[in-house]
Amino acid sequence: MQRYFAKQKMENQFLLQEDDLYHMKTVMRMNEQDKIQVVYENKVYLCHLKNVKTNMQVEIETELKVTEDCIPKVTLLIPLLKEQKMDFILQKATELGVDQIIPIETERSIIKYEKGKIEKKLERWQKICKEASEQSYRVNIPTITKIHKIEEMKALQGSKFICSTTEKNKNIRFALKSVHNCDRIIIAVGPEGGFSMNEEKKWNQIGFTSISLGNRIMRVETVPLYVLSILNFYYME
Amino acid sequence: MQRYFAKQKMENQFLLQEDDLYHMKTVMRMNEQDKIQVVYENKVYLCHLKNVKTNMQVEIETELKVTEDCIPKVTLLIPLLKEQKMDFILQKATELGVDQIIPIETERSIIKYEKGKIEKKLERWQKICKEASEQSYRVNIPTITKIHKIEEMKALQGSKFICSTTEKNKNIRFALKSVHNCDRIIIAVGPEGGFSMNEEKKWNQIGFTSISLGNRIMRVETVPLYVLSILNFYYME
Repeated sequence: MQRYFAKQKMENQFLLQEDDLYHMKTVMRMNEQDKIQVVYENKVYLCHLKNVKTNMQVEIETELKVTEDCIPKVTLLIPLLKEQKMDFILQKATELGVDQIIPIETERSIIKYEKGKIEKKLERWQKICKEASEQSYRVNIPTITKIHKIEEMKALQGSKFICSTTEKNKNIRFALKSVHNCDRIIIAVGPEGGFSMNEEKKWNQIGFTSISLGNRIMRVETVPLYVLSILNFYYME
Repeated sequence: MQRYFAKQKMENQFLLQEDDLYHMKTVMRMNEQDKIQVVYENKVYLCHLKNVKTNMQVEIETELKVTEDCIPKVTLLIPLLKEQKMDFILQKATELGVDQIIPIETERSIIKYEKGKIEKKLERWQKICKEASEQSYRVNIPTITKIHKIEEMKALQGSKFICSTTEKNKNIRFALKSVHNCDRIIIAVGPEGGFSMNEEKKWNQIGFTSISLGNRIMRVETVPLYVLSILNFYYME
């Protein structure tokens, strides 16, 4: 069954976004009385459609029970990458349960956005996360913040790590053992070629522990998936 | 430094494949005396280039030490998928250390290949794995076999699992505990919509244990990455 996030709740109906309505009518070719799931304020509702051909309405039937995610919330700090890789990370990280994504300016990142275009980018990124959330039946959509500098990450609260290409002793297995009763794990992933020595020092100074991810040499867009898969496994009941 | 797999070794030189030579000359624009790494029979050699402009030769300087992979060998059984998803799985599974990939015919797979085209497909798949192996500095290239039926997997030796969408009790965490001194883990991943009940029964009958991957709902192409990431983590020292 398709799942959508609602814009607004009105008594026994939901108001959906225009592009979701388009998707239901034109892409999915839904019919009168077809059922969908609608998510609103972290709750999931079973609904059916009315007046599909004229002025489609989404009527609530009942609220569904939701299984709680069992892993701590994860904030992913990612470098600015080419559009395709960025889209890929956003989609897959959403599938794998990321809670918050913060794009970070790094020395070795080859992408620079013009001031005027950043708003549009953010909108696009949010849309990708919304659609991936719907497809993977999440009850919430990861937040994407505006682009930040490393120094600004000092304020983040949680267990903070950066994926280092030089750290040899502490690996992620070791690092996770040190996380106690923590409600947020914050992991920074570097660009192609990794963070510079200077940047790694900056991260360390604001409380991020350098960790190794093991011996594999991965493409930059594979790393966030690898890390999130591990966290899912580590906190699996 | 770029890494390539050699076709043949001749005294103090390597013979590389035509498309690798093209890549070195035209894409990487390599020059006289430039260094590359060459892999041959699971060993890695430091080499330099000679006669780049005329008849390029790859001269061996010395053999390099190789860090051994520390996880058991993994065979991945994957359904037939659309080209883009297939390519994606091959590339990422190679990065994450898969040893062998076996494409499997499944009921819900929407892809059917014409007899004459399968050879070409296999060649293409092998090429993707070779290139991903070079990029991730592997000393071997995963094997891809021809397309098989479920029943034919009975002969495989190792700890055998299928990713089930219905199994609720045994998860991958539990399953890995049962793997002892095993040199091969064999994991079958289903198509969009999972294996049919009938297929799951077939797998079970030939020794594959059904396991759950947790509560996340993932796209089919995400699952192999998720599983391989977990195995890397599980066997990390």
